[in-house]
Amino acid sequence: MFQLLDFIGTFVFAVSGVLTGLNKKLDLFGVFIIAFVTALGGGTLRDVLIGRTPVGWMLDLQYVYLIVIGFVVAIVFRKKLDKLRVSMFLFDTIGLGIFTLIGLEKGIEKGLHPIVCIALGAMTATFGGVIRDILCNEIPVVFRREIYATVCILGGVLFFVLQNCNVSNDFIYLTTTVFMIVLRLLAVKYKWYLPTLYYKG
Amino acid sequence: MFQLLDFIGTFVFAVSGVLTGLNKKLDLFGVFIIAFVTALGGGTLRDVLIGRTPVGWMLDLQYVYLIVIGFVVAIVFRKKLDKLRVSMFLFDTIGLGIFTLIGLEKGIEKGLHPIVCIALGAMTATFGGVIRDILCNEIPVVFRREIYATVCILGGVLFFVLQNCNVSNDFIYLTTTVFMIVLRLLAVKYKWYLPTLYYKG
Amino acid sequence: MFQLLDFIGTFVFAVSGVLTGLNKKLDLFGVFIIAFVTALGGGTLRDVLIGRTPVGWMLDLQYVYLIVIGFVVAIVFRKKLDKLRVSMFLFDTIGLGIFTLIGLEKGIEKGLHPIVCIALGAMTATFGGVIRDILCNEIPVVFRREIYATVCILGGVLFFVLQNCNVSNDFIYLTTTVFMIVLRLLAVKYKWYLPTLYYKG
Repeated sequence: MFQLLDFIGTFVFAVSGVLTGLNKKLDLFGVFIIAFVTALGGGTLRDVLIGRTPVGWMLDLQYVYLIVIGFVVAIVFRKKLDKLRVSMFLFDTIGLGIFTLIGLEKGIEKGLHPIVCIALGAMTATFGGVIRDILCNEIPVVFRREIYATVCILGGVLFFVLQNCNVSNDFIYLTTTVFMIVLRLLAVKYKWYLPTLYYKG
Repeated sequence: MFQLLDFIGTFVFAVSGVLTGLNKKLDLFGVFIIAFVTALGGGTLRDVLIGRTPVGWMLDLQYVYLIVIGFVVAIVFRKKLDKLRVSMFLFDTIGLGIFTLIGLEKGIEKGLHPIVCIALGAMTATFGGVIRDILCNEIPVVFRREIYATVCILGGVLFFVLQNCNVSNDFIYLTTTVFMIVLRLLAVKYKWYLPTLYYKG
Repeated sequence: MFQLLDFIGTFVFAVSGVLTGLNKKLDLFGVFIIAFVTALGGGTLRDVLIGRTPVGWMLDLQYVYLIVIGFVVAIVFRKKLDKLRVSMFLFDTIGLGIFTLIGLEKGIEKGLHPIVCIALGAMTATFGGVIRDILCNEIPVVFRREIYATVCILGGVLFFVLQNCNVSNDFIYLTTTVFMIVLRLLAVKYKWYLPTLYYKG
């Protein structure tokens, strides 16, 4: 179930990367690379920083195949994806939650401090988009809009709070994921933004 | 012979990096860094992702010396390099082939899947240019133009196909390199581009 | 004493990162990330390249706490920091010297060649700013202005020269740090720039 959601998240992140690459008028190789880094860039950076090498996707090619499939599907159906905007947004939100949990897990496996684990969770979920934006020569959108990364951080905090309560692991995973998904949906619905402060430098 | 071609490739990549840095009006330190990452950035990223650390050039300073020499030569002769455009292009193409093979080798040494090895080959040959373009605040040219990376990928595929035939290693290396060089020359001569698809997002 | 100066350097780099992020009109998450990479990005890149993973700040959270404090202080007092411009510049210069020495040390610990150690020193001191500028979609300022990185390189050279003289380690550290600080102050006072060469490509 967990792995299935991870696969769906990877697939949807890849599809959204394809749309970004097409918008930037890249050639097919460029579009593929953008799809790849959007889906796997966050986890790759995490693995490099904690010394988990060769990085994850090199040892489990299922993720690479998924991105290839996502790439082909998105290219073929690119004109129809507009109608799937709501579904894509939902899957992207599920991906956000699952990727955060996976990042948390890798940090715990390495015996790192909860604060570092939370950072790794947020990194896994959001830095694919950061690398995508750098490659597309934009200021990363996650630094400017909505409470995207904040959702991951709050989800991570909840995860560690629940670990100190007397509940099962399954309960923790489910609650944390649902919490992040609901929080993100509310944030988008009610247009919750992190503040930008006035500063004249 | 192989090492000699690798050295030539490194040198020419560094020279081309110097020209890019000068065009961007960087100071001499900036120009040197651009030369360095153009020549060694792809291999450095590859080493980091597969966990081959300290990365290659830290353990074999010959590459660093070569870049210093390339830097000085390119700075001194910068106004005459225009006349060498054809020779530079040829050496750059040789570099493309050799760097791809080196990336393939490192992946095989680590026991990684052929698909990953091919990705590492293409990364070694092309991501120096990607990092250079990011530092120069441009969308990477390899995502937009010609079939540069595609040549590396096809060369990698040929390499693994030949490994399943009953031929010597020398034959494989020679054939693969010549194939990539010829393919790139044809691609430039006949202006083969990867398609950019119409998409209105 | 050395650690105290390192803490001060980290703090001041974080504060300067906050000001950059605010100038770019990022939201609070974006501003925090910019503060973080400005202070710790150079050391993080160094650790990844030499294979010192998990990277430094994941194992010593004092640096993370310092950045959080620097972030809060800079946000709260953002309108008054202008008056501290001279003090900030002084601490930034101290940070430059200390960060260079720390980078040198990590290279020596790994048994790397002095040339590589000097590169690691300069990387530790300057590449936080490079990553900050990439994330803010600018050509890195260190490639274009003053002899910032050159100070680190010359400091590194002096460090290894002194190691071959018959002097104590404390003497080497003190002399090298003071040398870099004075050189940087002179460079700014007398507007020493690295040349940008004329080139029409």
